[in-house]
Amino acid sequence: MRFVTFESEGLPKLGVRLGDEVVDLSKADPSLPNTLLAVLEADNGIFEEAKIAAESARERLPVESIKFFPVIPRPPKIICIGLNYAAHAAEGGHDKPNYPSFFMRGATSLTGHKQPIIKPKISETLDYEAELVAVIGKRSDRHMSREETLDLVAGYSMFNEASVREWQRKTQQYCIGKNFDNTGAFGPDFITADEVPPGGAGLTIQSRLNGQLMQNDNTSNMMFDIAEALMLLTQCLTLEPGDILVSGTPSGVGHARQPPVWMRNGDTIEVEIEGLGVLQNPIIDEE
Amino acid sequence: MRFVTFESEGLPKLGVRLGDEVVDLSKADPSLPNTLLAVLEADNGIFEEAKIAAESARERLPVESIKFFPVIPRPPKIICIGLNYAAHAAEGGHDKPNYPSFFMRGATSLTGHKQPIIKPKISETLDYEAELVAVIGKRSDRHMSREETLDLVAGYSMFNEASVREWQRKTQQYCIGKNFDNTGAFGPDFITADEVPPGGAGLTIQSRLNGQLMQNDNTSNMMFDIAEALMLLTQCLTLEPGDILVSGTPSGVGHARQPPVWMRNGDTIEVEIEGLGVLQNPIIDEE
Repeated sequence: MRFVTFESEGLPKLGVRLGDEVVDLSKADPSLPNTLLAVLEADNGIFEEAKIAAESARERLPVESIKFFPVIPRPPKIICIGLNYAAHAAEGGHDKPNYPSFFMRGATSLTGHKQPIIKPKISETLDYEAELVAVIGKRSDRHMSREETLDLVAGYSMFNEASVREWQRKTQQYCIGKNFDNTGAFGPDFITADEVPPGGAGLTIQSRLNGQLMQNDNTSNMMFDIAEALMLLTQCLTLEPGDILVSGTPSGVGHARQPPVWMRNGDTIEVEIEGLGVLQNPIIDEE
Repeated sequence: MRFVTFESEGLPKLGVRLGDEVVDLSKADPSLPNTLLAVLEADNGIFEEAKIAAESARERLPVESIKFFPVIPRPPKIICIGLNYAAHAAEGGHDKPNYPSFFMRGATSLTGHKQPIIKPKISETLDYEAELVAVIGKRSDRHMSREETLDLVAGYSMFNEASVREWQRKTQQYCIGKNFDNTGAFGPDFITADEVPPGGAGLTIQSRLNGQLMQNDNTSNMMFDIAEALMLLTQCLTLEPGDILVSGTPSGVGHARQPPVWMRNGDTIEVEIEGLGVLQNPIIDEE
C-alpha cells in the first residue's frame, strides 16, 4: 500500500495512491487521520482501514494533478547516515568506518517530489545523493536487538539528500551543508513495509542527472543496514513514530568526479529505487 | 517577563513566572495560546496580554510545586554550536575556527529543570556544557544582516548540553553523542529579550558540579555571537518561531580536565547565567 502527501488549499493532506490515481483519504473516510504522521502515531493497523476506504472511493485524482509535499512534512527526527556504502566512503577518501556517521536535518530542508531543489546563491557546489528511507511507525524501546528493530519500520521511501559540499566541509560537522532550505527531496510515496523486502535490502538504487546514470548500486551494499543502524540508535535514544532514517548514498556523487559535477538551474535529478518508484526534482536557482 | 512550561495532567502547559510563583496562563486567560511555541507562532505581541492576564490572576502556584518541562518541549529545530568559546576550543586541541560547528539535537534528547539528566548504561563519559539559548520568535528571511538578526530573537534561556563524549567521538560527527535521551536540559525560564542585554552578551556563564565551580566565563567571549551565528544560519536556511540556537560552551568541561571528570548517578549539575537564573539537574543512572 502506498500513501502520498499532497497539497490541498495550502495544507498537506494524506492520499492513498492507487496506480496512477490518488484518493483523498479525508474525503474517503473523514474519521481516519488526515496526515501520515497522525496515521503512524495512531497505529499502523489503520493502514488496512485506509485501504478499504480508498478502494471504495469514487473520487480519484490523477497523480499528475497533485502537488507533492514531502511524505512527512515535519518528521520529529530526520536522522541521516554519512558514508554508508563502502565505495562512496572510498571515493571521499574515508576508510571503512566502525560506526555510522549520524547527523540530522531539520524540516525546513525538505521538499516534495517534483518540487524544486533550490541551488543556493552562495555556492555552486550542490550535489545529489540517492538514499533509501526507513520510516518509523512505533515508539522504540531502548537497547533493541537487530532482530527486533525492523518491527519499528512502518514503511519505506526515497530521499535525495542534496548537499552543499562547500558548507558541508567548512567544519568537520556536515550538518549545515545538509540543511539548506529545499534541498532534501522526500518521496514520492510511502510504501508500507509489507511490500518491500525486509530492511529494504537487495534493491537497485540509482540517480540520474538529466537522464544520465550517476549512481548505481544495491541497498545490500550498505555497511550499516537498516536493522543495525536502528539497533545502534536505540542504544542512545528513543525513536518515535514519524522519525525517519535516511540511510546513506552510494558512490558516484558529483564532488568525487573528475571534473566535479554540480547541479545547476534547469537540471533534472532523479532517484530510483527498485520497486519504490522515481523521485524527480528540477533544480532552480534561489531567487 | 518570564515563562515556564510545566506539567499538568501529563501535558505541558504554559505558565507565567512572577517571582516565586507561577500563573497557569490557560486558567488566567483561556483565550491565549497555552504553549510557548503557540505564543511565539502567534505573535510576540501576546507577551503583553499574557502579562496583564497573569498579574490579575488570583490562583498562583508556588514554583517549588511545579514539574518543569523543557521550555519548548518540541522546538522545530535545535541548532547547537560546538567550539564557540576560544578557551574551550583550545582545551579540546582545536584552533580558532573560521565558521561555527553547527550540529542538531532532536527533541527526545531534552529534559526540564530539576528533571534528571540520564547517565546512559553504555558509557561513563557523560559531561556537562553550560550554554546560552536564543529562542526564535519570528520566521526569518534569508540572508539577513547581523543588525537585523537580533529582531528574530524573542527571548533567552539556558541549556546544559550534556554530552556522551565517547559517542560524540566515534566519528567526526558529534550528533549521536549529543542526542542521548534526557541529556539536554533546557530551562528553567524563557526570559523575553527586553529583559536581557542585546544578544545575551556580557553575562557571566557558569556551571557547578555538586556545588563546585567547573565553568566560569562571560557570554561576550563567544567567537560567533548570537547575531553573527543567526546571520550565518540565514545564509543557508529559514529560522522559524520556536527554533532554538544553543550557542556553545566555555572551557572547563569534564573531558578536558586531568583527570577527566564525568557526571555520575547522584550528582547535581547546575548552569547559571547572570540574570537568567539557575538550571539544576540531578544525574540518574539509566534504568
